[in-house]
Amino acid sequence: MTDRTLVLGLDYGTDSARALLIDAKSGETLGTAVAPYKRWAERRWCEPDRDQYRQHPQDYIDALEEAVAGALSQGGEDAGARVAGLSFDTTGSTPCMVGEDGVPLALKPEFAEDPDAMFVLWKDHTATKEAARINELNARSNTDYLRYVGGIYSSEWGWAKVAHVLGRNDRVADAAVSFVEHCDWMPALLTGQEAVRTMPRGRCAAGHKNLWADEWDGLPDESFLTAIEPRLKGYRDTFARETLTSDKVVGHLTPEWAERLGLSRDAVVGAGAFDCHMGAVGGEIRPRALSRVIGTSTCDIMIVREDELGTTTVAGICGQVDGSVVPGMVGLEAGQSAFGDLYAWFAELLSWPLQGIKPGAGDAGHTAPADLGPGRVIAMLSEAAEKVDPTTSELVAIDWLNGRRTPDANQELRGAIAGLSLGADAPRVFRTLVEASCFGSRAIVERIRREGVAIDEVIGLGGVAQKSPLVMQTMADVLNMPIRVARAEQTCALGAAMFASIAAGLHASTGDAQAAMGQGFEAEYTPNPKMTAHYDRVYEERYKPLGAFVEDHLT
Amino acid sequence: MTDRTLVLGLDYGTDSARALLIDAKSGETLGTAVAPYKRWAERRWCEPDRDQYRQHPQDYIDALEEAVAGALSQGGEDAGARVAGLSFDTTGSTPCMVGEDGVPLALKPEFAEDPDAMFVLWKDHTATKEAARINELNARSNTDYLRYVGGIYSSEWGWAKVAHVLGRNDRVADAAVSFVEHCDWMPALLTGQEAVRTMPRGRCAAGHKNLWADEWDGLPDESFLTAIEPRLKGYRDTFARETLTSDKVVGHLTPEWAERLGLSRDAVVGAGAFDCHMGAVGGEIRPRALSRVIGTSTCDIMIVREDELGTTTVAGICGQVDGSVVPGMVGLEAGQSAFGDLYAWFAELLSWPLQGIKPGAGDAGHTAPADLGPGRVIAMLSEAAEKVDPTTSELVAIDWLNGRRTPDANQELRGAIAGLSLGADAPRVFRTLVEASCFGSRAIVERIRREGVAIDEVIGLGGVAQKSPLVMQTMADVLNMPIRVARAEQTCALGAAMFASIAAGLHASTGDAQAAMGQGFEAEYTPNPKMTAHYDRVYEERYKPLGAFVEDHLT
Repeated sequence: MTDRTLVLGLDYGTDSARALLIDAKSGETLGTAVAPYKRWAERRWCEPDRDQYRQHPQDYIDALEEAVAGALSQGGEDAGARVAGLSFDTTGSTPCMVGEDGVPLALKPEFAEDPDAMFVLWKDHTATKEAARINELNARSNTDYLRYVGGIYSSEWGWAKVAHVLGRNDRVADAAVSFVEHCDWMPALLTGQEAVRTMPRGRCAAGHKNLWADEWDGLPDESFLTAIEPRLKGYRDTFARETLTSDKVVGHLTPEWAERLGLSRDAVVGAGAFDCHMGAVGGEIRPRALSRVIGTSTCDIMIVREDELGTTTVAGICGQVDGSVVPGMVGLEAGQSAFGDLYAWFAELLSWPLQGIKPGAGDAGHTAPADLGPGRVIAMLSEAAEKVDPTTSELVAIDWLNGRRTPDANQELRGAIAGLSLGADAPRVFRTLVEASCFGSRAIVERIRREGVAIDEVIGLGGVAQKSPLVMQTMADVLNMPIRVARAEQTCALGAAMFASIAAGLHASTGDAQAAMGQGFEAEYTPNPKMTAHYDRVYEERYKPLGAFVEDHLT
Repeated sequence: MTDRTLVLGLDYGTDSARALLIDAKSGETLGTAVAPYKRWAERRWCEPDRDQYRQHPQDYIDALEEAVAGALSQGGEDAGARVAGLSFDTTGSTPCMVGEDGVPLALKPEFAEDPDAMFVLWKDHTATKEAARINELNARSNTDYLRYVGGIYSSEWGWAKVAHVLGRNDRVADAAVSFVEHCDWMPALLTGQEAVRTMPRGRCAAGHKNLWADEWDGLPDESFLTAIEPRLKGYRDTFARETLTSDKVVGHLTPEWAERLGLSRDAVVGAGAFDCHMGAVGGEIRPRALSRVIGTSTCDIMIVREDELGTTTVAGICGQVDGSVVPGMVGLEAGQSAFGDLYAWFAELLSWPLQGIKPGAGDAGHTAPADLGPGRVIAMLSEAAEKVDPTTSELVAIDWLNGRRTPDANQELRGAIAGLSLGADAPRVFRTLVEASCFGSRAIVERIRREGVAIDEVIGLGGVAQKSPLVMQTMADVLNMPIRVARAEQTCALGAAMFASIAAGLHASTGDAQAAMGQGFEAEYTPNPKMTAHYDRVYEERYKPLGAFVEDHLT
């Protein structure tokens, strides 16, 4: 019999899926491959003007096959046979309407082009009215259903999105009986367990976004759900009462999928979860550390022992769910709606009117210099901003250019820049945006601490953490905490692989999996006492008042 | 005897002097020439970091000779002999320290390189402390010396600047006995009347900036002045009690200057005034019209009959002085510290990192497209901003990027932009800055009206008024008033020429001079009722609250 110690971590991001093939015992990476979503790349079902972002389920299937094949091809001839397990992480909340068979409606020919029959991507904000309705209903409810999701329901989450689709699309509403989160559909698909009433559902998506809690015996009451939208009648009964933490096995691959993917029929599929939750495990999260995936936005994760948390519910964050990250501990989630997106926005602003002009190609006499794309502009701005002494700056900015996810979700909020003088040049404004993104981080840290949860350090994951010393040093100074940056480039896929190893029985716990498969840290940032004092003042005297003004007067 | 009907209007701007040769009877322009200040072009005595801007008196002399020669050369062979009079307008308050002889100290060899011995340009902000001191002293004074200058003394004005120089430069302080405004020195120089105790002083500079008023018998008490700065002891006595309105004759050219300039010894020189005051006359100002020179900043002028104004003093503007614009009427002055400068700031921001790279010249691989200088970028932004529907915008900005001149002078204030989303692109932000500059105009209009002075229309003068329909239509909509744009390209020089014609006896009044020499209007903008309602809301609900926040929290 083959020695089966390999696992696959399958990470579904916003634009592409990645497969990471790794030896769970040695920790050695054998292969990795990325497959972009081809239909999504055309943005056919997106309407940015109204923040509608939809993804076709066929994109997920195509990307799965391409990415797994790519990773296995690097692992040696018998790599597929040596895979003992695979686990999925995906973006979320990214739900899709399904019928009794649990198949995403868009996979049926009659719905193949209907955006409401597709996955509603995490960043789709079409459901702001429905989210507001859920918040109103909860305020009048005897049971506080928002208790474990920070007290405010977001338009980015499942019930709001599903209610929005049901309210506007009769055809889809008539065909649907339930919805499925992307991270739950992948394991169900591969193990032949799509039938909706018995489909295994992961704890993470259910608890953080879809109001599942032991306290009220699973989902909210039917009466609460039908008050959001009458067509949600019956939806509650389509969900299994129990949910799975990510160490649990969903099942074995079906023979068909084993063949399609070139894997052993004995390979198990673990329960799925959201990317940042698994990423936090891949980045070696531990208690009292704030794990942050820092990219276009941030996703912030903490784990707390239940006995330590007691009856505390942290208000204004994206939830606290027992076992959503590490089984046996409460997982807290928070995040910033825009982080690196602030820098990209500014770089694109500066690129006008060269924007959209291809490097070297003349248009009305304007030629875009070949190496001045937004990425290069951000790098140049960072270099110039390093030389700005922030203690001489009068500038301050608010980071809510994409609304505010936490603390206290409000997608209607907008950003601001104040203290502008005629001498405010691009490097100064850029540095101010860097500071603003870090002040937004501080607001989250202060909120979590205020609610009684201690934070001693930050673990930085993701592109911005690994590529921008300016941002990370500023964050260390603003938060007055040390930051360690994970070495692994794909911590989400690595976390999924760790969970696959546990589901496959190769490791007993996340701690064991981290010890064997963890890749350590590549950099550490230590707060500079001079700067922490400066930023304390700017945060208290300028950032907080300006933010309060924006919140009170400009929405 | 030659028929002497020609006059010269001499306009001293920030960067250059212009001579306009015109026939006062026919109104025909015979010649015009511009001479840049050569020493100023090198900025040798400027320190932009501390807002120090100094100009050498020799620059003014050199530019005078060059500009007059240029204008005369276009007027035919005997043009010089046919000039009956000349008048000067200059920037201001632009004072210079002088000894008993009234000669600017920097013209003496031992002070030739000392910036404190030069003219302190209007936009020099080195004297903020001294301005604050004057405001404090006035608050404790029995006489309200700031009554006719809007209630707040500015760092841009004479006494603050002179006190600043005296306090920091012993050599200059020891040599000086008084100071002279640029607009007073030019006529004194040309007529041989520099001796300081008898030097004729113009009403405009004295009244609007240097606290001269009939009510307190000329300048403030010696005790008030020496409390600002002890070294001002004796300065009061160096000023003549009487001041001249711009229709008055200062004297005839000295033989030496007549020869140097190629003019008749019979030519008279009129009393000088500030550029915008003469410009308002050139632009055919009339009662109930707000005359606005709209360029990098604005200078706003109104004229009101004294009996109509009664005992009203308009708080928070730059002053109201009997005869400062049109003899026999009270001239009101206000203005915005930055107007077109807002657009230039944004264009320069967008030009980063191409900024400073010469068109076509490669630097580190970056080539600036030949036609993308800031002027071209503003034109492109305007074109793109025309297409933005402002009613769909969440953006709002505050225009105080260079402090606020009126209402209620405060150079410490700064600008702001709020309502920023990731979709806020360059044309949208630019349009928001255009709106902000017009909201700043509205604040001035509302203040003047609140104090009881009626305004029915706007007369637009200067580069922005003539070149930007977007800005002028937005201003008409924001102010809900019609705007007429003067046809004359050089209304300040034209106004000076009109006053020269009065001083020379060719016309009896500004009305007569305007009738004969006025050049009419080239465009009219009418408010769009849909937009006025929209801007009413934005002004009340967003601009004013954000401005109040900036003022209360960010200084």
